[in-house]
This record gives sequence, C-alpha cells and structure tokens, in this order.
Amino acid sequence: MRLYDYLDSGNGYKVRLLLTQLGIPFELIEVDILKGESRTKTFLDKNLNGRIPVLEIEDGVFLPESDAILFYLAEGTPFLPADRLERARVLQWMFFEQYSHEPNVATVRFWMRHTEIDAQKRIVLEQKRILGYAALEVMERHLSTRKFFVGERYTIADIALYAYTHVAGEGGFDLARFGAVNAWLERVRSQPEHIAITQA
Amino acid sequence: MRLYDYLDSGNGYKVRLLLTQLGIPFELIEVDILKGESRTKTFLDKNLNGRIPVLEIEDGVFLPESDAILFYLAEGTPFLPADRLERARVLQWMFFEQYSHEPNVATVRFWMRHTEIDAQKRIVLEQKRILGYAALEVMERHLSTRKFFVGERYTIADIALYAYTHVAGEGGFDLARFGAVNAWLERVRSQPEHIAITQA
Repeated sequence: MRLYDYLDSGNGYKVRLLLTQLGIPFELIEVDILKGESRTKTFLDKNLNGRIPVLEIEDGVFLPESDAILFYLAEGTPFLPADRLERARVLQWMFFEQYSHEPNVATVRFWMRHTEIDAQKRIVLEQKRILGYAALEVMERHLSTRKFFVGERYTIADIALYAYTHVAGEGGFDLARFGAVNAWLERVRSQPEHIAITQA
Repeated sequence: MRLYDYLDSGNGYKVRLLLTQLGIPFELIEVDILKGESRTKTFLDKNLNGRIPVLEIEDGVFLPESDAILFYLAEGTPFLPADRLERARVLQWMFFEQYSHEPNVATVRFWMRHTEIDAQKRIVLEQKRILGYAALEVMERHLSTRKFFVGERYTIADIALYAYTHVAGEGGFDLARFGAVNAWLERVRSQPEHIAITQA
C-alpha cells in the first residue's frame, strides 16, 4: 500500500499509526501541502477534494478521508468492534472528531504553526478556540467514567481523537485542566506499537 | 424508535428520509434548537455534544451524529453496499459531507434563514461561500461520469449529500451551474418513498 501524506498532519498520522499497529507495511509518499502539492492536477486525480491523506490500496485505487481509511483498514480486526451498535458508536465519535474537534483544535494548531495571523483571522481563531475547548469538554465528560471511547477498549475512535488532541497544546490549548483526557492520552500512548506523530 | 429532531435540519432530514424508505415507524420528538432546547441538561444526557438528530434506538439508548445513524440503520440493507471498499467509499463521501460540505453549504443557509448577519459574520460567510462552491464543484466532477456517489446505486452517501445540497439555494448558492448535480438531485428525488425535508 502507498500512503500519500504530510508528516505534520494528524489526519495522516491516524493512518500511519493504525497501519503500524496492524503490522501492514506501506510506502510513504510525502505531499508538501504548504507548497500546494495536494492541489496539482496529478494529486486531484487521486482525490478530487485535494486533501491528504490518501491511501492507494492497490495500483490506481485511491481512498481519501482519514476516518474512512481507518474504517476500511480496521474492519475484521480488534480495532473495530463487531457489534453493530458499537460500530455505529465508533463512527459517532469519528464524525464528532471531523465536525466538532478537527476544524477547531487542528485548524488553530495549523494556523499557529504555519500561517500569519492577521486581525481578521484572529477573530475566527478565537471563535475556533471556544469551539475547540467545547469539544475537549465533551471528551472530558465522556471519559470521566470510561477508559476508551467505545466498548472499554482501544479502537479507531481513540486513534481518530488522539491524533489532534495530543498536540492541542501546539495550538495554544491548555490540556492541564482535562484530567480524564490526559489519563486517556496516556492509555493510548501505552498501546503496543505506538508511534509518534512525525514517525513514518 | 424515537427521533429527536428539528424539522428545518438537513441532518435530521437524512434520518427521517432513510427511516421512511426503510419502512421503519418512528416517533418524532421536536427539539427547538433556536430556543436552546438542544443544550438543556435533559438533552445533554442524550447527547453530550448538544446537537440533533439523536436516535433513541431503544429506551435509554441514544445514538447521535446523523451519518453514524444512517450507517447504523443501513447495515444489512440495499442502502449500504456489502463490499468492503464500497462501504469505505460511502464513508468517504459522508466524511466529505460533514467536513467540506455541511459546515459551508448548511451553515450559510442556517445563518441566512435564522440569524442576523453583521459585518464580522459577513466575512466568515463569504469564506464559507467559497468553500461551499468548492464542495459543490467536487460533487459536480464526481457525478459527471456517474449516476450515484458509490457503486452506481442509491446509498446513504446520496442521502447524506442530498440533504443540504437540494436546499443550497436557500443559502444563496446558485445550483444552476451544476448540471450533473442537478441531474443527480432529480434521481434522488425519484427514489421510492422519497419525502420532503420538512416531512416527518
């Protein structure tokens, strides 16, 4: 398998982490999104939406969207429950991640690391900060009585939410106030074959 | 089943449409999100994230996130392919919907219908308009050679994307320029047991 990815991306990291934990070898093809390499004609042929990561499952078969890739890879493995309701709950948390968490926690981090923040962007950033904290608060409440997001074991819901939560501090989020989230981050980090975000 | 929903919501409509097309009877419980009814203590016990729709599958078992609900309901039916890659592609388009389409196309519509738009909001709205048109353009290119989003038949990927696309005009988007999207909207509308967005 080939993974088109950018090493600073939490969305790409999700896929690298799961591939590694599943023991699936893959070729990493770096796409420099800061230089517009995900918007070239060649790349748009792989993903019309111009975003990494994209998994090339076999020659010419491209699957975009990090959480759809996680689901594809995890089917039939311990990383995705077999029970129908638990599978839906995994998806519930992955949609929460893409709708309520990533556009705020990850986008603020990206802007602070890679872009100029003018007065106008600052206004949007502060709105995103409020929404990012709200998402972290939802996680905190859910985890206050649980070890993992679904079924009391490590699944792709945890991988999806770990990716940008563990680096939220790089976007100026103060994680210290989220005790249950911190304990969960540590549980995720202690899983076998765990790798860091910039590891391939 | 009970569905906690708000009739103007495309996210809720997705679930109403699929339940109707599956022939599953349900009780609709209206939640007036404009009056804050999705942020009360009682509602947060059903969904910590304070959003509709929420499906109560059996007494006390609540499933939020519209696209996770669609997946749950569609498993084992013709609305979700059995093939592993096609299932992942359905999810690919549902994640596209929640990340690249809904926050732009649906949010602009919501703001224009229900909120005051001051100068600051206008700036964000215009950014969302650009991103909304980009999402519609991705759909147009994908549909230019296809009848439906995945596997050349009607699935929950079509339901997820139909919900806010067919009312994009209410948010000021000009759909006339998207010929393939319009032909697809008509194909979706002509499916058996189709209902309109405000039908329960």
